[in-house]
Amino acid sequence: MSQTKQPITVQTVIDRLISPAGEPKANTVDTLKSGNPNAEVSTIAVMFMTTYAGIKQAVEAGADLIITHEPTFYNHMDDPSSLAGDPVYERKRALIEESGIAIFRLHDYVHEYKPDGILLGMLKQLEWESYADERDMHVLNVPEGERQTVGSIMNHLKSKLGIDSVLAAGGLDLPVSRFALSPGAPGFGKHVNFIRNYDADLLIAGETNEWETNEYVRDAIDMGFAKALLVIGHQKSEESGMLTVTEQLREAFPGIEVTFVDSETAMRRV
Amino acid sequence: MSQTKQPITVQTVIDRLISPAGEPKANTVDTLKSGNPNAEVSTIAVMFMTTYAGIKQAVEAGADLIITHEPTFYNHMDDPSSLAGDPVYERKRALIEESGIAIFRLHDYVHEYKPDGILLGMLKQLEWESYADERDMHVLNVPEGERQTVGSIMNHLKSKLGIDSVLAAGGLDLPVSRFALSPGAPGFGKHVNFIRNYDADLLIAGETNEWETNEYVRDAIDMGFAKALLVIGHQKSEESGMLTVTEQLREAFPGIEVTFVDSETAMRRV
Repeated sequence: MSQTKQPITVQTVIDRLISPAGEPKANTVDTLKSGNPNAEVSTIAVMFMTTYAGIKQAVEAGADLIITHEPTFYNHMDDPSSLAGDPVYERKRALIEESGIAIFRLHDYVHEYKPDGILLGMLKQLEWESYADERDMHVLNVPEGERQTVGSIMNHLKSKLGIDSVLAAGGLDLPVSRFALSPGAPGFGKHVNFIRNYDADLLIAGETNEWETNEYVRDAIDMGFAKALLVIGHQKSEESGMLTVTEQLREAFPGIEVTFVDSETAMRRV
Repeated sequence: MSQTKQPITVQTVIDRLISPAGEPKANTVDTLKSGNPNAEVSTIAVMFMTTYAGIKQAVEAGADLIITHEPTFYNHMDDPSSLAGDPVYERKRALIEESGIAIFRLHDYVHEYKPDGILLGMLKQLEWESYADERDMHVLNVPEGERQTVGSIMNHLKSKLGIDSVLAAGGLDLPVSRFALSPGAPGFGKHVNFIRNYDADLLIAGETNEWETNEYVRDAIDMGFAKALLVIGHQKSEESGMLTVTEQLREAFPGIEVTFVDSETAMRRV
């Protein structure tokens, strides 16, 4: 007698995504934002952020489950309490409810993979895996004999990530022997750690608070320290990291269709 | 017998700056960051942020007192605990201590002036005082018969504030009859209030969290709402507001030299 094939449910996929990080956490933003954990899954859409357009695209493509890195309802906790009755919120909620699609946020767990799944995906996309420092893979060492400057690294970022322009502090001709890639918005403490404790010549940040990291680097440069900062935007600094999750799901569930939904950035430079 | 002329001290100036907001507050970031409250003042430098270069310029110009809107030590509370031994922090601290200059932060009080002193200064610089809505001066009504678009307002901002480029969501040709100016980084709740409760066609923000305001406006636009967002940067959205403080001090203390120290932004777009 052949074994009964177990259906793959939303919860099966969630369990698989949590497992590389260890046990499920009590306090996490990584929760099911909509849908039924027992629903069967045949198509998964992976995306950086559940924008209205992204959800619509996933629904139209027949996806049962979305895996998103960032929130759906405009705040880190996806707390809708201040948004009840808001026309934008209500329309997004209606689209989700009417479609019945399940949305799971994969933020905290994927950053706790060893190595950090988002960072690993970014390093792959940027072809920088071999640069990674043993102590911390955010720190990248330029191999001896290879010449890099802030400008050459910036051009590489633009080309590999499809970025039109970035914010810069420091000279583009500054030679770089060690730099750091800090996806997302981990805050000033993490940023300054790369510059000071790892002595990175250049920090590449996703998103900063202007009065924190930006001003620290401005002062450092004005004091004569040979430092530079590139701020490339939150989405561009993490989106390609979700390709790791896409690959992971394809390997784990070969019978399920897994698509990656990328998107334009919310804002353009004019 | 003539009255003895009282010397103007750091504390005299602080009291004068607090008075339009009412009583001194117990919990505020508006504290004396360095210097002696009883020291006599002959020259005041007003600036948006006490950068290393800005402090140096003030010291070299002979200022005894700096009035700054933003922090000195890279966090809102000016808490130096994580920065002890940091070469950038220590060098900045040494410059301040060796010079003996007094630094007072004027942030919370000036925003509590009626009207908000920073907002008023920005409206003056932008020649938008007559646009201000009675209910809230952040809300600006385009007079009947005057045609404005997102693009025309953006060009005005660039020209009046000396901005090279801004981040935009929404069409530049969108007609605007009501818009809102939200200096600094007051957060998503304030931003969405202008868009939803005041039905502003366009929000001009200083600094946003990318996953909050930017994504709300992106979704609104993708749903077909005629909305737009311009993010002009924290410094450019508030710096000219400190001209109000400069004028206020010149009027209150005609015998004291009051200079306004502006600066480039920390980052440039490349």
